[in-house]
Amino acid sequence: MKTITIRPATPADHDAVWCIFEPVLATGDTHAFAPGASREEVLGYWFQPSAHTWVAEQEGRIVGTSLIRPNQPGLGDHVANAGYIVAPAFRGRGVASAMCAHSLDAARAAGFRAMQFNFVVATNAVAVELWKRHGFAVVGRVPRAFRHVALGEVDILIMHKTLDAGETRGDPRA
Amino acid sequence: MKTITIRPATPADHDAVWCIFEPVLATGDTHAFAPGASREEVLGYWFQPSAHTWVAEQEGRIVGTSLIRPNQPGLGDHVANAGYIVAPAFRGRGVASAMCAHSLDAARAAGFRAMQFNFVVATNAVAVELWKRHGFAVVGRVPRAFRHVALGEVDILIMHKTLDAGETRGDPRA
Repeated sequence: MKTITIRPATPADHDAVWCIFEPVLATGDTHAFAPGASREEVLGYWFQPSAHTWVAEQEGRIVGTSLIRPNQPGLGDHVANAGYIVAPAFRGRGVASAMCAHSLDAARAAGFRAMQFNFVVATNAVAVELWKRHGFAVVGRVPRAFRHVALGEVDILIMHKTLDAGETRGDPRA
Repeated sequence: MKTITIRPATPADHDAVWCIFEPVLATGDTHAFAPGASREEVLGYWFQPSAHTWVAEQEGRIVGTSLIRPNQPGLGDHVANAGYIVAPAFRGRGVASAMCAHSLDAARAAGFRAMQFNFVVATNAVAVELWKRHGFAVVGRVPRAFRHVALGEVDILIMHKTLDAGETRGDPRA
């Protein structure tokens, strides 16, 4: 497998990150941002001041991007939230899995004690299974909270993983 | 029972709203904002551009404040999120219940099809029971996601209610 390198994103990566988002959002089947969401809205969220944002590179190309941020302020800020997006042409190569493992390590290193996903589309079986392989459990299910462009209103899953400070990095593909 | 009037909040209400938040947050048992959270951070959230914010008045005094906002952007923006806070001296008078009923009506009128609470402290039994009386169901439970100042890490509940467009306003105290 070709090496995937993950490094902090910079403003110079805005174009590349947007070029990943735009076609993925157009399908309207995995992310809350609607098809046609503005570059300003999406990048404003993805590069928000409280977030750490990374890009994943393979053979010198940016193939994915990830972020972590506190899921809540104050007395809830020990739980991280994370997001991932992979360029359609680079799916099935372990990019999302590598970004997830990296973000869990980064969250642990930053002192977060758990990670929570707030908005996993229940019909996105590939993602749900991938997060489960990384140790996430489904802790909630919100009925009809996502307007899937093809399927109509579908459920949203809330997924959670406790971060053990002593845990060593484990890539579930190994 | 003395009449509770709920009207849109304006910038002139910032001081009164902050005077409600500050002592409630100091107890560290119900809201994510930590004791000592800054006025700027709290009011920035409570009066965010995507929110509708109200104040509840009783006998000419502001006794509570509430907001609704889309819980997600784009394909998740048919689900409202809401928040409520009651001045400690005016608890037990139905202020939170009145604000909840009002916000459900307002959300329905604005076209939202459901309401979701993301962060109900599981040990806050009064709130959990009140939301249940208003028709909310627990759809998720996140372990140890709130650092309760007195109790340590406690669980967070995610609660949800579908809004039926034809539903008439019902105050569960009636």
